[in-house]
Amino acid sequence: MSQVFLNGHWLRPEEAAVSVFDRGFLFADGMYEVMPFYRGHVLLFAKHYARLERSLKALEIPNPYSEDEWLSICQTLAEQVPDANAIIYIQITRGAEYPRQHLPSPDLEPTVMATATHWTPPATTALPVRTELLEDIRWLRCDIKSISLLGNIMLKREASRLGGFEPVLHRAGRVTEGASCNYFIVKDEVVYTPPADELILGGVTRDWVIQVAKEAGLEVREEAFSVAELMSADECFLTSSTREVQPVGQIGDNQIGNGQIGPVTERIATAFRASRPYSLSEE
Amino acid sequence: MSQVFLNGHWLRPEEAAVSVFDRGFLFADGMYEVMPFYRGHVLLFAKHYARLERSLKALEIPNPYSEDEWLSICQTLAEQVPDANAIIYIQITRGAEYPRQHLPSPDLEPTVMATATHWTPPATTALPVRTELLEDIRWLRCDIKSISLLGNIMLKREASRLGGFEPVLHRAGRVTEGASCNYFIVKDEVVYTPPADELILGGVTRDWVIQVAKEAGLEVREEAFSVAELMSADECFLTSSTREVQPVGQIGDNQIGNGQIGPVTERIATAFRASRPYSLSEE
Repeated sequence: MSQVFLNGHWLRPEEAAVSVFDRGFLFADGMYEVMPFYRGHVLLFAKHYARLERSLKALEIPNPYSEDEWLSICQTLAEQVPDANAIIYIQITRGAEYPRQHLPSPDLEPTVMATATHWTPPATTALPVRTELLEDIRWLRCDIKSISLLGNIMLKREASRLGGFEPVLHRAGRVTEGASCNYFIVKDEVVYTPPADELILGGVTRDWVIQVAKEAGLEVREEAFSVAELMSADECFLTSSTREVQPVGQIGDNQIGNGQIGPVTERIATAFRASRPYSLSEE
Repeated sequence: MSQVFLNGHWLRPEEAAVSVFDRGFLFADGMYEVMPFYRGHVLLFAKHYARLERSLKALEIPNPYSEDEWLSICQTLAEQVPDANAIIYIQITRGAEYPRQHLPSPDLEPTVMATATHWTPPATTALPVRTELLEDIRWLRCDIKSISLLGNIMLKREASRLGGFEPVLHRAGRVTEGASCNYFIVKDEVVYTPPADELILGGVTRDWVIQVAKEAGLEVREEAFSVAELMSADECFLTSSTREVQPVGQIGDNQIGNGQIGPVTERIATAFRASRPYSLSEE
């Protein structure tokens, strides 16, 4: 992995440290952003950056850098991993102060951390995975990309224990999302995904997939659907920045369709790869 | 404040630091505990310690020390503040590893941090405060004393902005708790407090107050109550380890009773102070 960018300094991972009084450590008082780079080129930087600014605004944490400065930091990090194929991770917290108190002082200096890890972008559609249906126990502001992620971690661990790659979450029977991905289903050739309200994190890849699917001539509806509709779907897939379009063949003991990659999913996944500005198909 | 106990070392607050890859910093993957000391004597250590163990167990984080070792660490910290009147803060996270990944490796070494700050135990019943009614947006496992506290922080900041000392939270009209306290109301001389289910953190002080009130001959019901019942209560108070019994005179624009300390609240607060093993009344 790359060095760690920490408050303007470039450090080796093992030496990068923050105060135990950082509000990120004490209260999860901060946000993060993840963005993929292909060969040094960021995909949809404007969209990731807009979400970064939205999360900061929701938490009333000032943005310590300009858009150009952020892009420069990210590019420097990306160049430190092989082929500059990188997942950039950015985390910003409200800053440190002691003694610990719930209400922060108004003048804290945010803590900024960023790193890059190597990443191999999918060149073909991945084989279907199994996911696990679990109750969504998280808070009601999942639209903020916050570091208050213990709920996600507990659900991801529970899904893993059950043999699943990810959870698929529901609130009182209404499907929301995964622990770190969005869900889509296909029924009678119509594509459905839950609306980007406060119960899900409207992923950049989710939005991109919706656009690509529409351009491919498919009908896409951003509508709530039930667990029953999920389980009886013709096809199911999940999306994230790193997995892009990932088919789901089974949810718990319930097979989706014939358990293989469905034709609509394959069509969307192929169109998605073709839509990447720096296509890997030439390699 | 005291030194910081960090993974077996005693450090000055300004030098105590953890890796940016600590899962407490990245994912809020950890828990905390708070316990008051009076003149070097811990109150209800067994109850706080039982809750610490319960939180660790819920997160499947191993307890790095024995009960005796914990008591010794806490006492050493308490002795570092004036009169050994201390609030001890303990935080344990799952530990650090990089690169960042949601699912933790199984063999991580927990990060342990503890500090003490000076505290003046209330000698008389505090004047009534104003609190603010807000919707409870937090997760559904508030019974775990986790560091995934961003929701609490946002609600506390919103209450403060509205002029309140604390929020009083409700889910769909059912009262839960504050951002860092429990709530009680009095109606027709009966004391009500929400049941200790997964929607609230069953405070040690809450349990103690229930016991003291019962011993004082009052009827106490651990029952859900509505916002309407809260607003029309004869009396209201909140409880926490540091505030003990804190009267509430106003919620938003709505006055509770005559806005003064109610007679049942005063009776409970006085009985609570008298029940402290190391009474301050002699000073």
